[in-house]
Amino acid sequence: MTPHSIIYFDNAATSWPKPAETLRAMEHYLLNIGANPGRSGHRLSLDAARIIMDARAGVAELFGIEDDLQVVFTKNATEALNLAIRGLLYPGDHAITSSMEHNSVMRPLRTLEREGVELTVLACSPSGELDPADLSRSIRPNTRAIYLTSASNVTGTLMPLKEVGTIAREHGLIFCVDAAQTAGSYPVDVEDLGIDLLAFTGHKSLYGPQGTGGLYIRKGLEEKIRPLMVGGTGSRSEFEEQPDFLPDKFESGTPNAVGLAGLEAGVRFVLNRGVPQIRAEEIRLAERLLHGLEEMPGVTVYGPGDPSRRIAVVSFTIQGLSPAEISLALDEEENIMSRPGLQCAPSAHKTIGTFPVGTTRFSLGAFNTEDEVSAALEAVGRLAARVRRKT
Amino acid sequence: MTPHSIIYFDNAATSWPKPAETLRAMEHYLLNIGANPGRSGHRLSLDAARIIMDARAGVAELFGIEDDLQVVFTKNATEALNLAIRGLLYPGDHAITSSMEHNSVMRPLRTLEREGVELTVLACSPSGELDPADLSRSIRPNTRAIYLTSASNVTGTLMPLKEVGTIAREHGLIFCVDAAQTAGSYPVDVEDLGIDLLAFTGHKSLYGPQGTGGLYIRKGLEEKIRPLMVGGTGSRSEFEEQPDFLPDKFESGTPNAVGLAGLEAGVRFVLNRGVPQIRAEEIRLAERLLHGLEEMPGVTVYGPGDPSRRIAVVSFTIQGLSPAEISLALDEEENIMSRPGLQCAPSAHKTIGTFPVGTTRFSLGAFNTEDEVSAALEAVGRLAARVRRKT
Repeated sequence: MTPHSIIYFDNAATSWPKPAETLRAMEHYLLNIGANPGRSGHRLSLDAARIIMDARAGVAELFGIEDDLQVVFTKNATEALNLAIRGLLYPGDHAITSSMEHNSVMRPLRTLEREGVELTVLACSPSGELDPADLSRSIRPNTRAIYLTSASNVTGTLMPLKEVGTIAREHGLIFCVDAAQTAGSYPVDVEDLGIDLLAFTGHKSLYGPQGTGGLYIRKGLEEKIRPLMVGGTGSRSEFEEQPDFLPDKFESGTPNAVGLAGLEAGVRFVLNRGVPQIRAEEIRLAERLLHGLEEMPGVTVYGPGDPSRRIAVVSFTIQGLSPAEISLALDEEENIMSRPGLQCAPSAHKTIGTFPVGTTRFSLGAFNTEDEVSAALEAVGRLAARVRRKT
Repeated sequence: MTPHSIIYFDNAATSWPKPAETLRAMEHYLLNIGANPGRSGHRLSLDAARIIMDARAGVAELFGIEDDLQVVFTKNATEALNLAIRGLLYPGDHAITSSMEHNSVMRPLRTLEREGVELTVLACSPSGELDPADLSRSIRPNTRAIYLTSASNVTGTLMPLKEVGTIAREHGLIFCVDAAQTAGSYPVDVEDLGIDLLAFTGHKSLYGPQGTGGLYIRKGLEEKIRPLMVGGTGSRSEFEEQPDFLPDKFESGTPNAVGLAGLEAGVRFVLNRGVPQIRAEEIRLAERLLHGLEEMPGVTVYGPGDPSRRIAVVSFTIQGLSPAEISLALDEEENIMSRPGLQCAPSAHKTIGTFPVGTTRFSLGAFNTEDEVSAALEAVGRLAARVRRKT
């Protein structure tokens, strides 16, 4: 149980609590290292650079990336996705995405659409599932890239990455995956899945702090991507031109070294525990939550009923109450933290039929417990019963 | 004295140590708040949002900014400068800058120059000083903006911001200042100086952690600036278009809330101590350093001799040794952390005649002491004497 007996079911927004290792690593950095990595060359600066190298190596190990330098660190998944979208596409290109995407994918694509990029948004099923055959049919001669979430942040629905990766390979398309909801909590291997660009966030299921994230870029593809920003890199400082090699091309300015120290520790926590083990425990709790909620009169649960086709994100509504009212009551009366509304994914809610009010979302992490799930089910049950009595 | 009896003279790269308050605020955030601000609406999310509001208010107070919402947070000064440069200029515009700029200004401007933006780089004197008359002469009918550092990160030379601000007003030009080296250590008031855009970093003399920085945008100017990235903002989530209001337009994705908690504490530390007081103490130490180095045979010091015309950044060379050799010896033999080379500012080194080998740079912060300055002067003296004996 987290401090103040709070039940924290908002891990899809950011995970909390963090492992003790994450805090210790950040404190160690601030107290004993502090310096700017890759800049000054003195011992503290070298220590800082080493921590970032270790974080890069940890991320590479997690995603099956052969060369650590193909991992570029960004401030969050949004920056990584903008780099993969705005840095890659030109007017006249055609891009394909799904109707389940977060605004971090949809807004950059819609912005480019107004500038002449063609966009196809593949309609998913009411449970958020994508049919790969729809993808095949939508490919055009000028299709350049496919942008797809690994799992919906609204319904938890897993996307058919393997099938999409195969189709992308067959047609020579660039395949970019938004792994914000799965990095660390569900196995993602860039080689196995045929992924060319993988955007991840550090502060969700990688158990690092906010202010961290990154983009894996398949070797060679870095030449085709324009940086969102340029500046000091601590390399080739004699030139007023941006270096063209990785990771420097896309990592201008002082990096968030203290954040990356925390991310390194978080990734180690995940690697030590093992992604399959984390996945197994989370989905077991999610399944109880899912089935418990499904049985309650007046409660509707969204996404696939089969737990193997989803992650531990559970969206629901209660007839007679708005999601905002549900989440407020859960917070104030039951000490349960959830997220109501559209979760920054309006298109996903249109797909599942919950636009514009949205849902209340429970999202689990590695520190949630059986007891918390039991307490949450009782709490939602009480709330639903109260509404039924009133109506 | 910092841990391990290290003398840390690399505060222009990043300040260290940080105030205890900065660490405490970050630890408090990680242990007791954790949540994603402005997203979920539960109590922890609201606590997180409040911390970021407080950080914005602190920054606004420091720079004399009337409306807190005109402060946009970024991951570092480089992102802020790219937003101010790449987000504002169009092909056909003319921009003016100085020869003393850091690559975080020069590289974005050079990139745009290749895309059709006209650029004038005003030559500064060998001590890094800019003559405002040169600026007036360089203004063209299509001049849109002036980009100027507040003080050189190489020589510490202060730029004539007040005079440049007046010229900018007279000609209706946008005046953007890079305050990476002065925010918190030298008074900067956006109204007094006529500044329209002010880029700052959080991890130098604002005593926050790495991963923080921002851009002040004068009211109305936000309409003319295109975001570097778009995505989820926790606002207007029903739309696939980016919100057009501040700060959301330029703050997509999860913010570095734990970093901003630290920044808030760092800014409070600065406000409590007072910028004039910090300035007075730093420049007193810098003056001793400056004069002590100037008296040593074989040692050359760069930048203005008058301490009132500079900040506490002191670059020097020793005849017969490269800056890399000097900094390495200071690190290994004397426990002094300095930064050798070009400090990501090749044009500045060309201006002062130290390109391409650069200088060794001592840069002071609020925690440096008289004893450290004495020890550093003795150390450089020993090093210079050893070289003289050998030659």
